[in-house]
Amino acid sequence: MNLTRPLAKLIEEFQKLPGIGPKSAQRMAFHLLKMPYDDVKAFSQAVIDAKENIKYCNICFNLSSIAPCEICSDKSKTDNIICVVSESKDIIPIEKTKEFNGKYHVLQGLISPLDGIGPEELKIREMVERIGKENTQEVILALNPSVEGEATSLYISKLLKPIGVKVSRIAFGLPVGGDLEYADEMTLAKAIEGRREI
Amino acid sequence: MNLTRPLAKLIEEFQKLPGIGPKSAQRMAFHLLKMPYDDVKAFSQAVIDAKENIKYCNICFNLSSIAPCEICSDKSKTDNIICVVSESKDIIPIEKTKEFNGKYHVLQGLISPLDGIGPEELKIREMVERIGKENTQEVILALNPSVEGEATSLYISKLLKPIGVKVSRIAFGLPVGGDLEYADEMTLAKAIEGRREI
Repeated sequence: MNLTRPLAKLIEEFQKLPGIGPKSAQRMAFHLLKMPYDDVKAFSQAVIDAKENIKYCNICFNLSSIAPCEICSDKSKTDNIICVVSESKDIIPIEKTKEFNGKYHVLQGLISPLDGIGPEELKIREMVERIGKENTQEVILALNPSVEGEATSLYISKLLKPIGVKVSRIAFGLPVGGDLEYADEMTLAKAIEGRREI
Repeated sequence: MNLTRPLAKLIEEFQKLPGIGPKSAQRMAFHLLKMPYDDVKAFSQAVIDAKENIKYCNICFNLSSIAPCEICSDKSKTDNIICVVSESKDIIPIEKTKEFNGKYHVLQGLISPLDGIGPEELKIREMVERIGKENTQEVILALNPSVEGEATSLYISKLLKPIGVKVSRIAFGLPVGGDLEYADEMTLAKAIEGRREI
């Protein structure tokens, strides 16, 4: 292939992104070359700006360009409830529901002994310190229903119970619009286990 | 949504790329933030380098960082046959076949009266001049089997026939591995029209 060097390099760089194969990378690269120079410059700048300016919030460890982050400094949100998530990106779908009006705490991972990640690798100590200082009444664990998510949830609940904080976990079950016929056994088992009286 | 500004901007920029929706853009943005600084810098640099250094070849109008481009200056390729394509990116799949050992000519579009694109907007004049200078014996039209592709092919063949150059067009028909049962009528009509004695 006689692909000109800067183009080959650009396609190669795009392929490092998640979910981007050779064809998509090629498509994006050619698209960029057709864009006006100023737009390409803005794109390139946005990439480096985000990396240079976004750090972790010193309170909740969410990604942010300001400290404390936008959510921690939002006066309309209550300090009484903290929602614990694994990664910053998990905050987005929860915020979108508009059902939660508390703060967050980002663990930056999940307990996973196989990967050598124990509780001390996560922001758990910082969470406990924070709960001690703030007037936290409830901690909602919004961790994935995976082995690591289960282990981390269990660990945190055991840790917080003695402090007298209410610990809850988001519900797992049949998704809205889902079909019993097509539900997998694990989900269905969770749905039965989590049944509520009506 | 309380998304920090540089992150919101980055997601927005990713969404400008073809085939990238909000979810993919978000995924790519978070991935970039997790990458080491130097890798992000390299990505950002590759984008701007490609845009700044890649121009059009002065002979075939392919995208290239050198002039004449890599293909035009490739001594192992014959000048006798020119393959005419609509866009630079169409060269890639043809080169991959390793079945073609000639040069290319990129029209930079197709005749499309509805979009206000006539022959003078394309690199057709440059192609005719080039054929006059070089020892071109055959022109292969590798344009899409669309209305615009048909119109452009017809226009070029009418233009070149009087000059005494052989003009051919790539074959359209059933794709290899394709199934007659699932072929659309247009493809099948082309396959029957283009039948060859065996």
